Amino acid sequence: METLPRIEGALGAALARSTAQGCPPELAAALRHAVFPGGARIRPKLCLAVARACGDDRPGLTDAAAAAVELLHCASLVHDDMPCFDAADLRRGLPTVHRAYGERLALLAGDALIVLAFEELALAGASCSARLVPLLATVAAGVGSPHGIVAGQAWECESQVDLGDYHRAKTGALFAAAAGAGALAAGASPQGWCAFGLRLGEAYQVADDIRDAAADAQVMGKPAGRDAALGRPNMATAHGVAGALARYEALVDKVIDAVPPCHGAAALRTMVRMESERLLPKAWQGELSRLAA
Amino acid sequence: METLPRIEGALGAALARSTAQGCPPELAAALRHAVFPGGARIRPKLCLAVARACGDDRPGLTDAAAAAVELLHCASLVHDDMPCFDAADLRRGLPTVHRAYGERLALLAGDALIVLAFEELALAGASCSARLVPLLATVAAGVGSPHGIVAGQAWECESQVDLGDYHRAKTGALFAAAAGAGALAAGASPQGWCAFGLRLGEAYQVADDIRDAAADAQVMGKPAGRDAALGRPNMATAHGVAGALARYEALVDKVIDAVPPCHGAAALRTMVRMESERLLPKAWQGELSRLAA
Repeated sequence: METLPRIEGALGAALARSTAQGCPPELAAALRHAVFPGGARIRPKLCLAVARACGDDRPGLTDAAAAAVELLHCASLVHDDMPCFDAADLRRGLPTVHRAYGERLALLAGDALIVLAFEELALAGASCSARLVPLLATVAAGVGSPHGIVAGQAWECESQVDLGDYHRAKTGALFAAAAGAGALAAGASPQGWCAFGLRLGEAYQVADDIRDAAADAQVMGKPAGRDAALGRPNMATAHGVAGALARYEALVDKVIDAVPPCHGAAALRTMVRMESERLLPKAWQGELSRLAA
Repeated sequence: METLPRIEGALGAALARSTAQGCPPELAAALRHAVFPGGARIRPKLCLAVARACGDDRPGLTDAAAAAVELLHCASLVHDDMPCFDAADLRRGLPTVHRAYGERLALLAGDALIVLAFEELALAGASCSARLVPLLATVAAGVGSPHGIVAGQAWECESQVDLGDYHRAKTGALFAAAAGAGALAAGASPQGWCAFGLRLGEAYQVADDIRDAAADAQVMGKPAGRDAALGRPNMATAHGVAGALARYEALVDKVIDAVPPCHGAAALRTMVRMESERLLPKAWQGELSRLAA
């Protein structure tokens, strides 16, 4: 099956379980709003791509791993958008969950999505429990404390922050988990894959910084210039758009070099190149460079 | 080992992992504040008591199950206390997490505790993976959507609510999960134990309603009369304190009758009787009845 239908199918099945009969109707609606329609689904795509490169011999487990990673990403967005953090009104071109359903349901929907992610892994892992434990540990490390997304967001509450620690935790950790989980779901060692994911996350963060600093709301589906408004570190603000673009290109090359040896390495390199182009289209890069010059 | 040292030891080990080197210091402090000092630890005590009644042949797994249940309970308290929900200033006689560390860290600490709960189960389940999958599923069902704590809190956001559904989800589900997890950690079937836990949760909810309606802040460690102030359903308000006390006594008897056949049934019945007396001391019950008469 194609990548996106697998991801959307797995997410749909997970959401159907968590919004089944007996679920408070507003919570069910908030949960669906948090997950559909999706954004780029870049983390579950990464998870699937790595699993395929490693053979993907347990597609049910791969799909659950991809869905878990995306559910956790959605949960982090819902909570990060809330008034006490970014107070964002728009996400993916639609009202954020707390704007659509209120703060209480946004808080609960995020919590429910975290639980659902681990529930999905457990259900899918029943038939191959040897892979389940490292999968759970890898995914948990990507979101929890001390080094996952939660820690990344918590660095925003500290007075002294190492920018590398911040980005590694806020963005890199879940990319690393997505790649590691893809390998583990396919029975491969996560060795090398987590490092590959971390590098990809670093490149993605620079692209996101450039988009935030230079793009407009229509392109992003959410307001631009949020980092500046919220006083958050941003590569394009610190080094200029042209400097950040050069760094992005260099990082993408490094990511491609970091693909571990595996039977599907060539296809994976092509996919990374395509996704990096999709994130910051060449035409758009040229225009940004001209604007920044 | 005695019950409480086992619980505190397991929670301490879990917290040490999640606040290890590299953790943002304020997040680490907020996490510790959310878990220590504890309240009655009634859910992990229940989990341990059921595991013991079933043989407790894997004490490491039992301890992880008990810790997971308590971590999830603490997470729900941190989020439930936040301004968008109960806006509580005090918990266990101390400032709530958001009062002590701000809303952002309260939000993140709750998230991190949910992740940590599943991480603890995964780590402890590595050596007996056959028990891990049903354990994870049982614990997840107790907190997630559609029937766990999150759903219980979400019922507070609905205009039409069945009181039974609300209490089963908000309180009963995690008691059911604690009892079921205790059985599963000891290799027993959760059959019967979840129903026993659900009934115990029902009794506990009535006791909590009575304490909320009739006690004062000094006894509770948190403000009394919150249900009335927040417009939440309360058994003692609906049926009077004397009516609620009678119902409580009848429910405790039912809980004791519901102990499934097992080698430690007698000890478990004694424990339920003692805990029910600790929750609403007889002397105090007499005084409440006189006041209510």
